[in-house]
Amino acid sequence: MTEAQKDYDKVHTLSRNARTLAGISSLLEWDQETYMPPDGALNRAEQLKTLAGIVHKERTSKKFAKALEKLIDLKTGTISVNSLSVPQQASLKEWRRDFLHDTALPNKFVKDFAKLASQSQLVWREAKKEDAFKRFAPFLEKIVAMNRKKAEYLGYKEHPYDALLDIYEPEATTAEVGQLFTHLREAITALLKKITSAKQVDDSIIKGDFPQDKQIALGEKLLAAMGYDLKKGRLDISTHPFSSSSHPSDSRVTTRIYPESPINNISVILHEGGHGLYEMGLPEEHYGSPLGEAISLGVHESQSRWWETRIGQSKAFWTYFLPIMQEMFKGKFDNVSVDAVYKAVNKVEPSFIRVDADEVTYPLHVILRFELEKALIEGSLKVRELPEAWNGKMQELLGITPKTNAQGVLQDVHWSMGAMGYFPTYTLGNMYAGQMFETFAQAHPDWEKRVASGDMLFIKEWLAKNVYHHGRRYTPKELIQAVTGKSFTAQPYIEYLNKKYREIYFL
Amino acid sequence: MTEAQKDYDKVHTLSRNARTLAGISSLLEWDQETYMPPDGALNRAEQLKTLAGIVHKERTSKKFAKALEKLIDLKTGTISVNSLSVPQQASLKEWRRDFLHDTALPNKFVKDFAKLASQSQLVWREAKKEDAFKRFAPFLEKIVAMNRKKAEYLGYKEHPYDALLDIYEPEATTAEVGQLFTHLREAITALLKKITSAKQVDDSIIKGDFPQDKQIALGEKLLAAMGYDLKKGRLDISTHPFSSSSHPSDSRVTTRIYPESPINNISVILHEGGHGLYEMGLPEEHYGSPLGEAISLGVHESQSRWWETRIGQSKAFWTYFLPIMQEMFKGKFDNVSVDAVYKAVNKVEPSFIRVDADEVTYPLHVILRFELEKALIEGSLKVRELPEAWNGKMQELLGITPKTNAQGVLQDVHWSMGAMGYFPTYTLGNMYAGQMFETFAQAHPDWEKRVASGDMLFIKEWLAKNVYHHGRRYTPKELIQAVTGKSFTAQPYIEYLNKKYREIYFL
Repeated sequence: MTEAQKDYDKVHTLSRNARTLAGISSLLEWDQETYMPPDGALNRAEQLKTLAGIVHKERTSKKFAKALEKLIDLKTGTISVNSLSVPQQASLKEWRRDFLHDTALPNKFVKDFAKLASQSQLVWREAKKEDAFKRFAPFLEKIVAMNRKKAEYLGYKEHPYDALLDIYEPEATTAEVGQLFTHLREAITALLKKITSAKQVDDSIIKGDFPQDKQIALGEKLLAAMGYDLKKGRLDISTHPFSSSSHPSDSRVTTRIYPESPINNISVILHEGGHGLYEMGLPEEHYGSPLGEAISLGVHESQSRWWETRIGQSKAFWTYFLPIMQEMFKGKFDNVSVDAVYKAVNKVEPSFIRVDADEVTYPLHVILRFELEKALIEGSLKVRELPEAWNGKMQELLGITPKTNAQGVLQDVHWSMGAMGYFPTYTLGNMYAGQMFETFAQAHPDWEKRVASGDMLFIKEWLAKNVYHHGRRYTPKELIQAVTGKSFTAQPYIEYLNKKYREIYFL
Repeated sequence: MTEAQKDYDKVHTLSRNARTLAGISSLLEWDQETYMPPDGALNRAEQLKTLAGIVHKERTSKKFAKALEKLIDLKTGTISVNSLSVPQQASLKEWRRDFLHDTALPNKFVKDFAKLASQSQLVWREAKKEDAFKRFAPFLEKIVAMNRKKAEYLGYKEHPYDALLDIYEPEATTAEVGQLFTHLREAITALLKKITSAKQVDDSIIKGDFPQDKQIALGEKLLAAMGYDLKKGRLDISTHPFSSSSHPSDSRVTTRIYPESPINNISVILHEGGHGLYEMGLPEEHYGSPLGEAISLGVHESQSRWWETRIGQSKAFWTYFLPIMQEMFKGKFDNVSVDAVYKAVNKVEPSFIRVDADEVTYPLHVILRFELEKALIEGSLKVRELPEAWNGKMQELLGITPKTNAQGVLQDVHWSMGAMGYFPTYTLGNMYAGQMFETFAQAHPDWEKRVASGDMLFIKEWLAKNVYHHGRRYTPKELIQAVTGKSFTAQPYIEYLNKKYREIYFL
């Protein structure tokens, strides 16, 4: 073993320790959303705060800095050894990136932030239930203030929002996202206009009464078909579905059950299962190093939306899955055709709730949040003005106005978690998926035939090879380049939307 | 605020931090037994090891030692300030006790022990399932070796087992427990002899087919009736029932369901609920100091067995609870009298499994384990000889021989958790409960009438005032003295057993 290799392993060992502790935080958060007794909340906030403080200390320790500095210059980013592999060199750069980020934030700030986030989630939940924005507002004010402070700590070139975006999506900038979104907004608005004046789709055929236990059983079956290993994960119920991983061997997902709409659960399963598969597929031997981590939230979302929309809303999938539904819910889908279900699951209609939105209107929900967040962070919008601003934007983008704040500004968990700069990654993820899917379809021109016959494991294998296995070897844009051989653009995604929905709506 | 008070608060703050982290370990262990995906086990072992190392470091830090030393001499135990309250002084002594214990163990040992325990539990579970003692043996050997090492680290006067006992039951010694158990064994053997030659009780009336969901609903109802707050706790299912608390606001219990025997679940609920109530009742303001902790495992068990046996196996309880069972399981108990159920739940019969044992034979199971553990620790018994030794003792004490190791030496989780010296606390708990119940019954001469009418909250209140609220202000024996006004003896417990079972079996 070379000296450099030994030094690399030392950095990895120290880093793995912090990662193990961060994994414990993930479990605490999972528990908070699934099984924690309600009164345990304050103590949970204290636990998360304590753990966040320790993780932060470990990630910024002198010991770690010293070990890392032997291999890479922390100021310039120049790698000072030449016997490491290309992925290991990428790993050093990512470690440095994380280290600079972590050391920019004071330990007390990190702890206070973790506690505020845990508490705010509870308040948000109550506020949403009672449709009482005023209850949540003081917490949101604190969260905005702390995010502004965070941006200052982290530093930025043009816009404070850049610093926040960069946490979730390395290299993305406010200006670039703004441009992509403007382009996308135009394309979608044009498409949506045509769709709304076309003949509407009937989705009553996929509604009815579907008991929870059967929906859960169906969910587990679907997860297994995707290649999700139920020995390394599990499915539970939570108010807001999510995936949570503390290690590739423990990558869990949750769903929410609407008894009247089994499609909702199926979408969620495919979505969260896509996230879960990514985490499960990260190389265990690199656990605790950047090569054992997901690249970004945007790439993560490319995985979830891949399964949810590109697979789960395809005709091929329903050719395979409708008979399973017919078998499980006897009598419910007897006279329903694959074509009718395919159209029903792809029904386009402006609606209030982002997570229930169809594929076409979904990005508009994200654009709305992006614009509001940006305004909050730059200070041009106050928290107290937010409900009105929200409703105004909804009208502008989707042509509808929510009747309550619960179905408007209070609908998402993200802000209560302290996350600002997170939302844009949803749409970036769709774009990444759009471009990568083209390459996938070229590699597997028979993919629809195979999916229609119930074979989906080859999809996971393709994703594992092209995405999961790399960990953070690439930045998001490098990944797209490596996988597709082309620079990242929104074009494939826009083309896909246009082609698909023109066909469905006979435009 | 006096200087001493400030110093006390400083110790408390440092100690609370460690307690918060230890609470996280409890949650990880709870998850391991309830919802963790099977393949997550190795990572969980790593998490527990990492956390154990951090907790141990915090509890033995120079900072903590320095803060504590301002108030109490760590060598002699002399308290150097005089403005603290009596409970605070007791707290200082307990902190010192813990500190001496913790510093006696090297950090690496603590971490390795935590990892071994987490891994061994998995191996044990598989070994038990497959009735393969040989699979578990190498792990048990390591556990015995590490416990012997632990005893050496901790130090002892007479017997290495003293050091282990003292972890779970401060002040108890091998010699004293041996004496108590000899006395108890004689009394029980004599009683059991008479019972087995008397007319046997029919317990078929409480058997049948009782669906899991209804049993769980019944369990939650019963917990609520005990005063267990389901906002601060929850009920789940696990192979081996347990209670787990990370804070008074998050004190959980589990049960196991035998569809054919609802009484089993009820016993477990009362037992684990008793543990859960104790943890829930500890004073929150003292969380993280000895005044916010349970005294010992023995006192803990006095709480669980109190509810399980003294309340749950009383005629008063069944007067109240039989109609509830009749209502919930319509048709099942229509022609059954309270008296018949009372006798059935108190049926005495030597059996293989400790946790299913009746009140009379239960202590014999504990005595068996005490004797075997003592022999393992002193080295007079080898792990490979253990199955034979187990079966021999079973024959000697209970007159029966298990057919498999699964229903013999492999039945308990404790050794796989690394715990040796733990079992005796079960029977000490029964004895404590026996003596305290006399005092309770004097304070509430109408307790049976009240319980029969469905009122049980006054029991919790009495226990809260006499036990929960004190935290670790008293040692186990001091508590018994404080509550009952008398020194601790086994006599009240033995008298209770004799009186109750003479009546049931017309002896």
